[in-house]
Parts: sequence; C-alpha cells; structure tokens
Amino acid sequence: MKRFAALAAAVLLAAPAFARLRTKVVDYKDGDVVLEGYAAWDDGFTDKRPGILVAHEWWGHGPYARKRAEMLAKLGYTAFALDMYGKGVYAKDHEEAGKLSGAFFADRNAMRRRAMLGLAELKKLPYVDESKLAAIGYCFGGTTVLELARMGADLKGVVSFHGNLAAPTPATETPKAKIAVFQGGDDQMTLPGLPGFEDEMRKVKADWELTIYGGAVHSFTVEEAGSDPSTGMAYNKEADERSWQAMRDFFAEIFR
Amino acid sequence: MKRFAALAAAVLLAAPAFARLRTKVVDYKDGDVVLEGYAAWDDGFTDKRPGILVAHEWWGHGPYARKRAEMLAKLGYTAFALDMYGKGVYAKDHEEAGKLSGAFFADRNAMRRRAMLGLAELKKLPYVDESKLAAIGYCFGGTTVLELARMGADLKGVVSFHGNLAAPTPATETPKAKIAVFQGGDDQMTLPGLPGFEDEMRKVKADWELTIYGGAVHSFTVEEAGSDPSTGMAYNKEADERSWQAMRDFFAEIFR
Repeated sequence: MKRFAALAAAVLLAAPAFARLRTKVVDYKDGDVVLEGYAAWDDGFTDKRPGILVAHEWWGHGPYARKRAEMLAKLGYTAFALDMYGKGVYAKDHEEAGKLSGAFFADRNAMRRRAMLGLAELKKLPYVDESKLAAIGYCFGGTTVLELARMGADLKGVVSFHGNLAAPTPATETPKAKIAVFQGGDDQMTLPGLPGFEDEMRKVKADWELTIYGGAVHSFTVEEAGSDPSTGMAYNKEADERSWQAMRDFFAEIFR
Repeated sequence: MKRFAALAAAVLLAAPAFARLRTKVVDYKDGDVVLEGYAAWDDGFTDKRPGILVAHEWWGHGPYARKRAEMLAKLGYTAFALDMYGKGVYAKDHEEAGKLSGAFFADRNAMRRRAMLGLAELKKLPYVDESKLAAIGYCFGGTTVLELARMGADLKGVVSFHGNLAAPTPATETPKAKIAVFQGGDDQMTLPGLPGFEDEMRKVKADWELTIYGGAVHSFTVEEAGSDPSTGMAYNKEADERSWQAMRDFFAEIFR
C-alpha cells in the first residue's frame, strides 16, 4: 500500500485549488459550410495538458458529445467536440441520421477532412499540449476517429466506442496512433466488421486492442438509447463504465 | 479534479501505517497426493479483505505464480497460489508441461476438484472476506479458473490471462462469477477457441468481457517466455501492463 500512499500524495499535489469547468461554442468552417464545435476545459490548471477530440454519433453534434467533452475536462483534459454535419444539423430520426452519416461512410475523404478540421480547432484551444493529442468517438464517431488513425494523423491514440469498423480504404502504413476499440458482444451492427478490422490492424502492425463486452448491444454508452437490447440499441451501464475506465487507463499510458 | 482529491484522501486514510508483505508455504492434500500452495498477504491491514486464488501455468506451481500472489498482496488482497500437480512437481521442458497439463485438460472433473481444493485453502487464510473471492490464472491456469466459473463456484469474478478457452464440458447455467478474458491478438494457441467461448458465454448469459491485445502472442505476461514472438510465446510488456491494470479495474468493480 506504500505505492498507493505515494500516488495519493502526488494526486493531491496535482489537484488544482479552484477547479472550474469552462466551455465555449466554437464556429469554424469547411469551405462555405459553417460547423459548430464545443470546447471544454478546466481553468483550475495553468499548465498545458493533453487535448482530446470528441467525434459525435450519427445524430450529429449535440448534447451527448458535449457531455463527454465536459467529462473529459473534469478529468483534466482539454476537449473539443467536433461537428461533422454543419451548424444546427441534427437528425430528427434514424432515417435522417442514416442519410447524414451515410454520406460520410461512403466518402472517407470527406470524413477525414472534416475530422482533421476538428483536430485543428482542438489545437487552437488554451492549455493544449500539441504533442499529446488523442481522439475518441461514438458509433459513426468511432469510425471517424479510426479514419484519423488510418490516415496517419499525428495522435497518441484513438478510442472507438461501438464504432463501425469496416474500412473501404484501410490503413496502408502503421498508424501513429495507438488504437483502442470497445464493442458490444451482441452488437449485430458492428460485430461483422471485427475480423476485417483485426486483419487490417495486423497487416500494418498497428498498436491495437479490442475489448468486447458480453451482453452489450449497439450504443451501449448512450443512456438515451433506452434499456431494451432487443431493439439492437440500448444503454448498458456496466459496459459504459468499464469502457470509460479502460479509456482512462489508455490515456494514462499514451500520455505518460 | 475535486473527485481526484477526495479519492486521494480516501486512499491515504486506507493505507496501512506499516505495510508488510507476509508469505507462507501451505501443504494440503487431494486424497493421498500432497499439494504445495503459497499464501501472500499484507499484515499492515487488520480488516478482512478480498481473497484471490492464483492458478499457475502448465509448468506447475512455481516462482511465477508466487510472484503474482505477492503482487496481489501488495495491492491489499490476500492471495493463494494453488498447486494442481503435486508438491515439487514442476515441468523441466515443454514436453513434460504438455503431459502434466494434458491430463487435466482431458479430465475437467479432476481440474475442477483440484481448483476447488485450492479455493478451500484460500478461505482458511487470515483476513479473507469469504464473500469477496476471485480467481486468476495464466495459460493452463486460465483454463482452470474458467472451469471454476463454469461449475458455478461462488466467486465474484475470474480472470484468465492467455488461457485455453475450449470447453469440452461447457457451462450449462449462468456462472456466479463475472468473467474477464485477456488474449494475445497473435496467439495461435488460444485464438481458435474464441468463437466457441463467446457462444458458450452468450448461451448461458454470463457476465463476460474479452480483450485482445494486438501483436501479443501466447504467454504475453511472462518475462521468462523471452522476446521472440516468432516462437509463438513471448513477453509483451504493454499487454502485460494493460491486462494487469484491466484486472485491477475488474476487481475494483466486483468488490465494490
């Protein structure tokens, strides 16, 4: 337990005297298209800290991605929730979400460009250590951050939560980012993509890990997905908490 | 960071004033066969704490399992490294290890009986909270602890590191234990067993998770396995450290 005590003392010293969550809506552009992102950080720090990009689900930039950005800020990171679709564009139902995301699933260059624009906004934020960047994403956003890894973006790591793993334009070189992927063990929407993803990672000698949570279906981190797994999408508290903890461990390693 | 500070304070309070690792060789029996286990705990505590059973690799009870028991004791658990083969029986080469383990792979009843005898010894140790027990195992020992889960042993959790997952006598009811399995992404010895294992877990609605570490081969937690993955067995520091941390998170959850 001596190590615990030493760790605890170190944590106490690092804790800011007056932690305060700060957030800011950030407009930025892709050509003529206005995008609306959301920054979150804790100004109880005065030092530079790692920056985390947050990629939204197929619905679009909204409360869920903003909540995750705030959770990351409370952990001491500077976070930026990007916008893939455009300011104010948020799907009203599954059909619209499928159309909005489908355009980017079919055009990986566009997906990569919009993701990189979000990353550029993250780097502009206060207190970001540009040598310590990572990206996380949910569902469609999981795919988005994996595309950043595939294109060789200068990130320490990417984390995909229940993302679609299929890669029409797979990585051809070893990604700079370490890759952590979290899937539901009963997620019929993404499990078929696993073998292809694993082969892709092996071929380019990526640093990757994959965790499968038994009993979890798609959207297992999203409370708004409800509690009925038979619909194919449902919240799973255990898998949500475990994957968040696994992400924290992953960050501790890559930012060490 | 306020939560960090609160957590750190709690950890400081819980840390014992004079932590001291204690160990003890324990002889016990299966009929006429003498078995030699190894207990490890920290007597800086005076309260009851969770007990962890440690199941050895195919070599037999030896320094590796003892080291893991000591590591667990330093984390505040009471640990017992069991003996499956008999006092002083330790394979001198792969061939002998294959024979010794093969007898138990072929006789799951014998495997379960020896594992349960080890569990009984764990319960006798000082400071064990019998309502908070778990078992971890490596390689052959991973299979051993999974057999405990399959037979419905009264454990909060089992953790298998690079274990053989094939189950000639699969679980027929939901295991009491939550199950965490850690595999190497290039472990040709155990990967073929994954689909069957996942199906087994789904059928009995087990609480399970599986993590695959890209680039790791068999024995990835064992420094003595060397550093040449082309042999099929090699140490992988990253996968070793990640899986140990994942085990700690798993324990934090199941003993909460």
